Amino acid sequence: MKNINEKKIIQNIIDKTGDLSKYKMPQGLEIIKGIGDDAAYWKSGDFGYCVTSDTLVENVHFKLMYFSADKLGEKAVAVNLSDIAAMGANPMGMLINLGVTNDITEKWINDFYEGITKLALKYNCPVIGGDIVKSEILNITVTCIGNKKSNIKNKNIFLNRESVNPRDLVYVSGYLGNSKAGLQILNLLKTDLNDNEIYLKNSHLNPVPRIELGIDLNEIGITACIDISDGLLLDSSRLADASEVSININTSMLPISDQLKVIFPQEYKNFALSGGEDYELLFTASPNNKENIKKIAKKNELNLSIIGEVKNGNGEIMLDGSLTEPKGWDHFDN
Amino acid sequence: MKNINEKKIIQNIIDKTGDLSKYKMPQGLEIIKGIGDDAAYWKSGDFGYCVTSDTLVENVHFKLMYFSADKLGEKAVAVNLSDIAAMGANPMGMLINLGVTNDITEKWINDFYEGITKLALKYNCPVIGGDIVKSEILNITVTCIGNKKSNIKNKNIFLNRESVNPRDLVYVSGYLGNSKAGLQILNLLKTDLNDNEIYLKNSHLNPVPRIELGIDLNEIGITACIDISDGLLLDSSRLADASEVSININTSMLPISDQLKVIFPQEYKNFALSGGEDYELLFTASPNNKENIKKIAKKNELNLSIIGEVKNGNGEIMLDGSLTEPKGWDHFDN
Repeated sequence: MKNINEKKIIQNIIDKTGDLSKYKMPQGLEIIKGIGDDAAYWKSGDFGYCVTSDTLVENVHFKLMYFSADKLGEKAVAVNLSDIAAMGANPMGMLINLGVTNDITEKWINDFYEGITKLALKYNCPVIGGDIVKSEILNITVTCIGNKKSNIKNKNIFLNRESVNPRDLVYVSGYLGNSKAGLQILNLLKTDLNDNEIYLKNSHLNPVPRIELGIDLNEIGITACIDISDGLLLDSSRLADASEVSININTSMLPISDQLKVIFPQEYKNFALSGGEDYELLFTASPNNKENIKKIAKKNELNLSIIGEVKNGNGEIMLDGSLTEPKGWDHFDN
Repeated sequence: MKNINEKKIIQNIIDKTGDLSKYKMPQGLEIIKGIGDDAAYWKSGDFGYCVTSDTLVENVHFKLMYFSADKLGEKAVAVNLSDIAAMGANPMGMLINLGVTNDITEKWINDFYEGITKLALKYNCPVIGGDIVKSEILNITVTCIGNKKSNIKNKNIFLNRESVNPRDLVYVSGYLGNSKAGLQILNLLKTDLNDNEIYLKNSHLNPVPRIELGIDLNEIGITACIDISDGLLLDSSRLADASEVSININTSMLPISDQLKVIFPQEYKNFALSGGEDYELLFTASPNNKENIKKIAKKNELNLSIIGEVKNGNGEIMLDGSLTEPKGWDHFDN
C-alpha cells in the first residue's frame, strides 16, 4: 500500500465501528474515548483506565543492524509508555506480541525480554500477556494499560487532545530533533563517532517516556497533551484539530540541543519541526500555570520550554505567524 | 527461529518480568493473573477486567489465497474473542494493529474493517484503538478487553485454568477437527467443492467465538475453562498442568461431525485430537452440574459433550486410559 490516506482510513474505521453510542456497556462502566487520542479510556468506579497499542516492524521502524535485542525491547516499550505518559496515567501492565523470523535465536529473545524487563521494573509495569509467533519479518506489538485513581465525577481523568484553549501557552519537554539526527548518524554506519554524535545516536536508540511528567501535569490540572512521535508540526496539528484552535510556534523558542546544532548546522530546525520519534510531551496550559509548571520542570530535572501560543482557529499550524503545512513522519511515504 | 522451546521462553519471561509481587498497584486495584491463562485479569471495584492479544501473520496463520479481506477481519476478531469467551467475560472493546504490504489497497483495508465491524456489532465490542503500519508481510494483532460485573469478594471472577478438580467431568462445545479438515481442503485449491467440503471449509474460515456459552458457564459457577486453539490434546494438557490433575479422554465420546467422518474417514480422530483452531470451549464441571449444563446447551443450541473425566495426577493426558504425549499445532514446528 503506497501513499494511502491514513487519516481517511482511520476516519472510515471510526465511522464504521468506533461510534460508541452504538454499543451498550454495563451500568457503572463508561468508555469515554475510543479511537482518536494517544490511548482509549474508560471509567469504572474509583479508577480510570487507558489502553494503547503500537506496532513496530523491521526495516520500517527499526533495523537490526543498529539495534541490539535488549535495546530494541527497551525502545518498543518506551515508545508505548510515551502514549501512557501523554495521558497522564500510571502504567500498570503490558502485553508483548512478537513475530520472529527463522534466524532469531532463543538468546536474542531472552535479551529482548531483558530490555523489556528493565523498563517494566522501572515504570512498575509488568508484562501480563502477549504472543510469540513465527513471521517472515520481525514485528513487535506492545499494548499497555494505564490507570489513574480519581474520586472526581469529571470525565477528564486523563490528559487529552480536545481541551486546548485559545490563549494557552504551548509547552514542550526536553529537546527536539535529536532522534532524527541520531537516525541519520546510525544510517551512515560510521564507526568513529564523537561525543556529540553518540549523544544524538542514543537519543534515537533510547527515548525516555515522560511518565512522571505526565502524571505531574495531570495532578496540577493541565488537561491538553500529546506525545511527539511523528514530529512537532504533525502532532501539534493533531492537538489543534481535535481542539478546534490554531497553534502558533515561535521557531526561535524551539529547544535545540547544542549537540544537534553542532552536528547538523543546516538541518537542525527541520529535524526539530518534523523529525519524529522525539517522544517528548507537547502540552498547553493557561498562563496562570506558569509557576506550577516551573516547579514540575525542576522536580523532574527536565527542560519545559514555552514554544508558542494558542489562538482561535480550526486546526491551523503557524510558524512565526505564517500558516504552514504540518508535515511529519508518515509510514506510507517512507 | 526453528524448533524453539516456546514453553521455556514463556517461563523465562514469567521469571523475569511476570512475577506480580515485584510490582506495586494502587489501593483498590489488584492484578490477579498475569501471563498463564487465556487472558490476564484484574479486579477494580465492582468489575473484573481481562485483556488478551493475538498476532496472526500471513503465510503462517493464513493465506490471502483463500481469505477475502472481510473474512480475514472476522476471523482475526473471532480468534481473539474466543479467549474472552474462555474467561467467561463480556467483550467491551478491542484494538486492531495492522501491518500492511505495498500491494494492499485502500479497498482491502476498508473490507477488512467491514469484517471486523460485523463482529464488533454482534458482540458489542467497539474498536477503540490500534495502529496501521507498513510491513513487508501482512500481520494483524487483535487485543481485546473483557469485563464482568461482580459484587463477590471471590478472586475467581473469571474462568481459569487452575480450578479443575479430580472427579470433574470434561466437556467440550461443538464439534472437533472440522477446522483442520477445512484447512486441508483449502490448501488443495479444489474449485468444485461438495456440501460436506464447504461445511468443513467454512469451519476453518469462520470460527464462532463461544461468548454466550462462556458467560453462561461463569454464571452457574463453572470455574475451569480454556479455548481449543492448538488442539484438544495440547489445550487439555494446559488445563491439567495448571490444575495439577490428569485428564482422561474417551475417544469414542469425541464430538465429530458427519461431514468430517465422510470426507476424512481415516484422519478424523487425529484432526479432532490435535488439529487446532477449533475455538470451542473445553471446560470441566462436577457431575452435580450436569442438568444445568444441559440447560445451557439447549439455550445456546449448542452441543456440549462429555468427553472424559479428571483424575488425580500432575498434568498427564490419557487417551482411553493410556498415557499420551499431548501434541498440537506449534508455530515453530510448522
